[in-house]
Amino acid sequence: MKSGGILKIDILTLFPEMFEGVFQESILKRAREKGLVEINFHNFREFSKDPHKKVDDTPYGGGGGMVLCCQPIFDCVKSLRTKESTVILLTPSGKKYTEQKAKELAGKKHLILICGHYEGFDERIRYLCDEEISIGDYVLTGGEIPSMVLVDSITRLLPGVIKEESYVQDSFYQNSLDFPTYTKPAVYEGYSVPEILLSGDHAKIKQWRKEMAEKKTQEIRPDLKGEEVWNDTIS
Amino acid sequence: MKSGGILKIDILTLFPEMFEGVFQESILKRAREKGLVEINFHNFREFSKDPHKKVDDTPYGGGGGMVLCCQPIFDCVKSLRTKESTVILLTPSGKKYTEQKAKELAGKKHLILICGHYEGFDERIRYLCDEEISIGDYVLTGGEIPSMVLVDSITRLLPGVIKEESYVQDSFYQNSLDFPTYTKPAVYEGYSVPEILLSGDHAKIKQWRKEMAEKKTQEIRPDLKGEEVWNDTIS
Repeated sequence: MKSGGILKIDILTLFPEMFEGVFQESILKRAREKGLVEINFHNFREFSKDPHKKVDDTPYGGGGGMVLCCQPIFDCVKSLRTKESTVILLTPSGKKYTEQKAKELAGKKHLILICGHYEGFDERIRYLCDEEISIGDYVLTGGEIPSMVLVDSITRLLPGVIKEESYVQDSFYQNSLDFPTYTKPAVYEGYSVPEILLSGDHAKIKQWRKEMAEKKTQEIRPDLKGEEVWNDTIS
Repeated sequence: MKSGGILKIDILTLFPEMFEGVFQESILKRAREKGLVEINFHNFREFSKDPHKKVDDTPYGGGGGMVLCCQPIFDCVKSLRTKESTVILLTPSGKKYTEQKAKELAGKKHLILICGHYEGFDERIRYLCDEEISIGDYVLTGGEIPSMVLVDSITRLLPGVIKEESYVQDSFYQNSLDFPTYTKPAVYEGYSVPEILLSGDHAKIKQWRKEMAEKKTQEIRPDLKGEEVWNDTIS
């Protein structure tokens, strides 16, 4: 993660209205207000040189659907790109997004996110991009929701957005799932909080949490289990 | 997938405003207008019996952050649940979401999605849920964006939303990435469309697409390669 400065994120989308509510709440809102992240939207339709501002066309070789053309996206990216930019294409065939990648991108100065369209884009748009990212093995209408995933996961890791202690114990940050948490009341609808959590014995609680996180990871996501499942900086 | 009827989706969230723009565009908008899917938002804060409508409290056993309480979420779910409901908790420690799961959920009649909060929820909320789903190995501010992922990926698979030919050739639908697509012009900034796509030979084009999809899957996502990498119903 970088030690200061603002992260600038430019999002290329045909549907900027989709983002209207999503970054107006909670952590994202505060991060924008504090000037830690700047998010701009660009409807690349405005860059189309077509008289009708068309942005897609039929695929070469036949088949259904419309394919996003090179020109509007190339020109929009060129208008934004600097030496400090990382251009990312959101696509189901990209590299799988992880918390490690979020940490890496949180250290960049400028991200340009290109939201593809559900029916596909001209393969040559790939040549514009530094990275291709997929948020998971499922298909979405477009790259808009995946862009939201990136912006949200990256912004919360920027210095000053949330306390470091909050995210070092998150699931995945250390290749482990989080331990179970409980709050009042001690009994709810017959379900009790584990007694150890009410004991006040902090050393035992710490040990229990460590064991529970390891057990949960082993049971649900054994594939995550790396060398640094638990880090002693977490108390 | 079910053959008809409306899919009802209830979303429990402290931030219903986050969803303002996201379902107003494109396929989601049309699906809602056609009455194929009904989406409702429920701010479970309204169900809090606390005099200040509090929904979270400090964790038992100490540690930072606030934990979502059982009562408001339990009561909100109970007000919505019927025999036909599937209650899903969005959490990083859930089972990994896939296109297969999207297909399965597209066949349900009623989904209740619970959006957790970034600082955690009372473990006992799990007892309310039929399923726990994670959209990927990264941490987000809350379950709102993951809910958007579910709604978008499921809705596009509902009968009548998009043509079946559109999704059977999508990435992941058949454990394979999609083949590359190109549109006009044939040469853009020195990059050419593969000649075969301009040949008009449909049998050869079909064969090329099959090979390219297999090659891409092998190169980028060899882990996807199952028995049904390519299905001859795709032309």
